[in-house]
Amino acid sequence: MPDLDAILAQLDSDRDAAIERLFALLRMESVSTDPAYKDECRKAAEWLVEDLKSIGFEASIRDTPGHPMVVAHSGGDGPRLLFYGHYDVQPVDPLNLWSAPPFEPVIAEGAQGPEIRARGATDDKGQLMTFVESCRAWKAVTGAPPPNLTLLFEGEEESGSPSLVPFLEANKEELKADLALVCDTGMWNAETPAISTMLRGMVSDTITVKAADRDLHSGMFGGPAANPIRVLAKILASLHDEEGRVTLPGFYDGVADTPPEILAQWKKLGFSHEDFLGAVGLSTPAGESDYSTLEQIWARPTLEFNGVSGGYTGAGFKTVLPAEAFVKISCRLVGDQDPAKIRKALHQRFKNMLPPDCTVEFESRNGGSPGIVMPVDDPRFEAARRALSDEWPNEAAFAGCGGSIPIVGLFQSILGMNSLLIGFGLDDDRIHSPNEKYSLTSFQKGARSWARVLAALSKD
Amino acid sequence: MPDLDAILAQLDSDRDAAIERLFALLRMESVSTDPAYKDECRKAAEWLVEDLKSIGFEASIRDTPGHPMVVAHSGGDGPRLLFYGHYDVQPVDPLNLWSAPPFEPVIAEGAQGPEIRARGATDDKGQLMTFVESCRAWKAVTGAPPPNLTLLFEGEEESGSPSLVPFLEANKEELKADLALVCDTGMWNAETPAISTMLRGMVSDTITVKAADRDLHSGMFGGPAANPIRVLAKILASLHDEEGRVTLPGFYDGVADTPPEILAQWKKLGFSHEDFLGAVGLSTPAGESDYSTLEQIWARPTLEFNGVSGGYTGAGFKTVLPAEAFVKISCRLVGDQDPAKIRKALHQRFKNMLPPDCTVEFESRNGGSPGIVMPVDDPRFEAARRALSDEWPNEAAFAGCGGSIPIVGLFQSILGMNSLLIGFGLDDDRIHSPNEKYSLTSFQKGARSWARVLAALSKD
Repeated sequence: MPDLDAILAQLDSDRDAAIERLFALLRMESVSTDPAYKDECRKAAEWLVEDLKSIGFEASIRDTPGHPMVVAHSGGDGPRLLFYGHYDVQPVDPLNLWSAPPFEPVIAEGAQGPEIRARGATDDKGQLMTFVESCRAWKAVTGAPPPNLTLLFEGEEESGSPSLVPFLEANKEELKADLALVCDTGMWNAETPAISTMLRGMVSDTITVKAADRDLHSGMFGGPAANPIRVLAKILASLHDEEGRVTLPGFYDGVADTPPEILAQWKKLGFSHEDFLGAVGLSTPAGESDYSTLEQIWARPTLEFNGVSGGYTGAGFKTVLPAEAFVKISCRLVGDQDPAKIRKALHQRFKNMLPPDCTVEFESRNGGSPGIVMPVDDPRFEAARRALSDEWPNEAAFAGCGGSIPIVGLFQSILGMNSLLIGFGLDDDRIHSPNEKYSLTSFQKGARSWARVLAALSKD
Repeated sequence: MPDLDAILAQLDSDRDAAIERLFALLRMESVSTDPAYKDECRKAAEWLVEDLKSIGFEASIRDTPGHPMVVAHSGGDGPRLLFYGHYDVQPVDPLNLWSAPPFEPVIAEGAQGPEIRARGATDDKGQLMTFVESCRAWKAVTGAPPPNLTLLFEGEEESGSPSLVPFLEANKEELKADLALVCDTGMWNAETPAISTMLRGMVSDTITVKAADRDLHSGMFGGPAANPIRVLAKILASLHDEEGRVTLPGFYDGVADTPPEILAQWKKLGFSHEDFLGAVGLSTPAGESDYSTLEQIWARPTLEFNGVSGGYTGAGFKTVLPAEAFVKISCRLVGDQDPAKIRKALHQRFKNMLPPDCTVEFESRNGGSPGIVMPVDDPRFEAARRALSDEWPNEAAFAGCGGSIPIVGLFQSILGMNSLLIGFGLDDDRIHSPNEKYSLTSFQKGARSWARVLAALSKD
């Protein structure tokens, strides 16, 4: 058993140096999507390898067709853990909206106290360094980094992770662990840490309805000619009932009710739909009327229209009857909903409602991904939750997440392991936007949190 | 009574010179919408003034804030007639699709015989010159142009006629007549002339539904946030019932059944919805199921969606929940439908169906125009129809017209007179498009037709 108090004390005494190390990493302009920053990406990977070597890891650069991976192993016995983070960052434009250069990190006083400002401050350099700092303190106190731990740092997360699946496939045995740790999510609020245990999956299509073989004049053809916008509107209008429920047959197959103990935890979070919707100019939850707003986002599937277009859409007016109109539809999936089955039902609805003379074309974005529910009854999840609760003012929550985090699905499908998603981002961190920041508290208590979680998991 | 046979013989003997005169007018690049052609427009107006003077009219250029009007009077007694045409033409781009320069008229062999090819060959220089040539022959035979006749040639018809209403208002007494003659429409087919006696009116709006004050991420807000595309689809889908009927309350107020004798005439035209729809890749009439396709276009009102847009409409996918979505809607009106009442009912439907948190904005294109039905029981209409029937292989038809011709409404509302819409265009004339043409038969028999019509009307 490591001396947790000593490790926490070591983290506290090493704070200034920890900030210097994070700043060094933040100064590297590792924008993965722009080839001009290729060397900067590699520099960041190399810096991480050297830093990990310095605290007892066996670390190396692993080349891919794109930006390199960093893989490090600590060796030793105990439960095998894989930590994942990414060292690449989003582009910085529009540059003129930054109050300071994005790759010259500073500590400034923010609305909620001191904060680190730079591109990547939260996403994901600040977050991944909370974990590295906890390992460093562990080494300082115990003489070695946490045992049987593998670190995987990706350099293409912000550009679609093209090399990730082949790399996981090619290195299954090396990367497989009992549990993955991922630091790329947020807290419930500044006082309340969270473990994200439910992620929504997604299936999405662009669907085009076509009628005449050209645009028509509505004076000449208005009436007898099929109008694809009218056809599309009828079909889209059929997809939800008056209670906001999706009407596709079988859509809710595999959607389970949220367990009462989780609902009770969520209730304690004090979520206010007035505040949540009020922040964007809304007031009335528009989803399924018999579920709370938080359940609608975290635990219920959706079918949403993300874009629609047809006919003349410029200024003024043209009395055209368009030859075609399209919609972009995405479904957020939960539980055991089957993306392929749902896509099929959606296509079938269009085919069933298509009048004579119309055709429909489907362009599928990809195979889709199912929703993910982590086993919160696994004692390691509860142990991690208790460990987080020890560090922060409020008890940690098992939270949902309305969005999708592809790596979690890949860890399940390729490496057969679940993920403990713990992160210290806050809602106002401006990730992907100008003036990205990371609360200094998030960085420092984040590192202490990981020390506590690693200690708790090492008790297995 | 003029000697009609002598006038027709004069027209036949003067054919070559008539073509030369039309060619002279076609060579003028009177594109009204492009200020670069301002002088060319004036040149065309001046040419018409000189030509009309040469055949006994008192003619003059009448300046406006835009391109000038040409007004000419013949003087004398008898029923007062006003002939309307326009000397301006559409732009010629894309120029590379013309097989010969658009302002260098030629006669070439077309699919249906010899044709005049140039911009404006039909619309409207060729058509208006059929009338001028009939007046010229009239003068040659009788020593004076047809009596009590006013000619009005506009130079802004292809650019929205901005000066027309003020000019009509300012010159009411001068322009008022017992009947207007307009040559800007088409034949039923190459053997069958037509008098257009029903024109559909129009009311059109751009309608925007708004929800959140910004675009939202569908992972974070999908479910509880109102989606304007979904709201729009529900409202649009409500506007037609399963039989294609518009569901707005009072929409069909003022829509009368087409008189049986008109329906009987239409039946004789041998209209084929298979051919009509087949030409644009369709086969099944999509309008009100209890009306024939020809009735749907000529005698029934419509509500059509001309454009729709909202959210992300580019390549690929963005899982955005848009802040707003809009639709462009136009209604074609017939009979005594009231544009203002229909607009109000449309707006009310949007307001009634708007869920909480959504707002709607209406941008009206203009006040709208009612449908127009000419009094076919007026003996002058029947006299004109008989006169046309004498010239062409098939009996002339009182036809409908799915589109709108604003001048006809203005002649009714400002000058209090009906219009006899007679034209010799054919469906394949490519007006507004590259390689515009006018059948030589249309030009020559068109002039003979006007001589017959003028003679018939002079009998009053």
